Amino acid sequence: MRLRALSQPRRISAGWDCSRRPGGSFPRTMENKVLMSFAFYSTILILKMYVVAIITGQVRLRKKAFANPEDALRNGGLQYHREDPDVERCRRAHRNDMENIFPFIFLGAIYSLLDPSPSVARIHFFIFCVGRIVHTVAYLLKLKAPTRSVAYSVAQLPCFSMALQILLATTPYW
Amino acid sequence: MRLRALSQPRRISAGWDCSRRPGGSFPRTMENKVLMSFAFYSTILILKMYVVAIITGQVRLRKKAFANPEDALRNGGLQYHREDPDVERCRRAHRNDMENIFPFIFLGAIYSLLDPSPSVARIHFFIFCVGRIVHTVAYLLKLKAPTRSVAYSVAQLPCFSMALQILLATTPYW
Amino acid sequence: MRLRALSQPRRISAGWDCSRRPGGSFPRTMENKVLMSFAFYSTILILKMYVVAIITGQVRLRKKAFANPEDALRNGGLQYHREDPDVERCRRAHRNDMENIFPFIFLGAIYSLLDPSPSVARIHFFIFCVGRIVHTVAYLLKLKAPTRSVAYSVAQLPCFSMALQILLATTPYW
Repeated sequence: MRLRALSQPRRISAGWDCSRRPGGSFPRTMENKVLMSFAFYSTILILKMYVVAIITGQVRLRKKAFANPEDALRNGGLQYHREDPDVERCRRAHRNDMENIFPFIFLGAIYSLLDPSPSVARIHFFIFCVGRIVHTVAYLLKLKAPTRSVAYSVAQLPCFSMALQILLATTPYW
Repeated sequence: MRLRALSQPRRISAGWDCSRRPGGSFPRTMENKVLMSFAFYSTILILKMYVVAIITGQVRLRKKAFANPEDALRNGGLQYHREDPDVERCRRAHRNDMENIFPFIFLGAIYSLLDPSPSVARIHFFIFCVGRIVHTVAYLLKLKAPTRSVAYSVAQLPCFSMALQILLATTPYW
Repeated sequence: MRLRALSQPRRISAGWDCSRRPGGSFPRTMENKVLMSFAFYSTILILKMYVVAIITGQVRLRKKAFANPEDALRNGGLQYHREDPDVERCRRAHRNDMENIFPFIFLGAIYSLLDPSPSVARIHFFIFCVGRIVHTVAYLLKLKAPTRSVAYSVAQLPCFSMALQILLATTPYW
């Protein structure tokens, strides 16, 4: 009977309760370190997106530029139902995140299940994460071109690599 | 040999055919009730998004406001290639769903694998689901502020809770 | 002890290292053919979305229409910080992809875990994939209505089918 130290970090459970097996001695949980690493970086990026959403709201309030008449009415009057370049910039950053971070989450999850080298996988996730954070900072602070485009392109490299590896592994099953 | 009653609901399969094991007596399927609950609420929300898409199309036809010249041509002429505030409202509701429901789907899936208490997990999913449905209703029916913002904020609470729990579990693997 | 031929394609790993089990003779990997097929078609569609993003960038450069002043400055001057109908068309195609391909990825992943018939599942994925590729071609090449809408509607059929099957399987766990 194999005991798991209580001090160990919680692991991602397969959801399949092996303890039901008569005489079973399995750990109840999965030990996919790559999936854990993927979950960490992806969650950081989702939180980063939430921060962009919060910034957008703050800029709307500060610049008094609301997308909906009902919001403008509550914040000074219908004349504030208008567009603002800084709000639009936040929205473009957010949209670009959706166009790129959501695909990463799909590719990274499947890639994590393909049994890749944990250190190589972590490099993929790390490069993407840093690239996207730099992208957001460059976008919101209006850094000089091509800072933002370079960050975008660097972040795409691990995505193309993962997509290629998934296709190599799954093409026999098309 | 453990038999599974045929009347039981179909379960999420791990995809790993345990019956191949010589002398195996495993059920073929996973029994992650949290994952099943997560799948239920997420599917409801995806269907809700499809409903917003269908409503957008209906409003486009009713208000005669088409985003593409080829659609306007088919529906009365190029003068109907134009914007409309009600169509834009539907599109904002849909975009806000993408900004929030897709992250929930990622967070909820990982959280479901962390072996949480089923009742606590269900509360997370339920609050998010109700919050997002109220958000859409408030958006499309132009309910007075801050109904929509409150629904948005309430729905974010389980998301932040799940993100925090994922980070606590996965930080050792960064 | 069951040996896995090296010539076999790599399989999606459950992440649960069965070889740790004393005396274990499990393969280390999942053999969910439906999940592999799903991963293949989804990755094709994600790459298709990346192509739309690249086309958008090329159209911006060719038509000299940049969303950000810093990009316009680098490409000829602030007068090129402007909108362009062809760029907006690419962006609408990309947004429509986000509205539909991301939900497919969620539905397809859960559906793959529900132990569906592999051939029926593949038909679902194939129809969606072809429908979305036709949708993009019809959008970017401005094909006559209703080509694009028909492609959109056909692609939604497997999504509704999968959503229904997920609800049937998960409703007991709401």
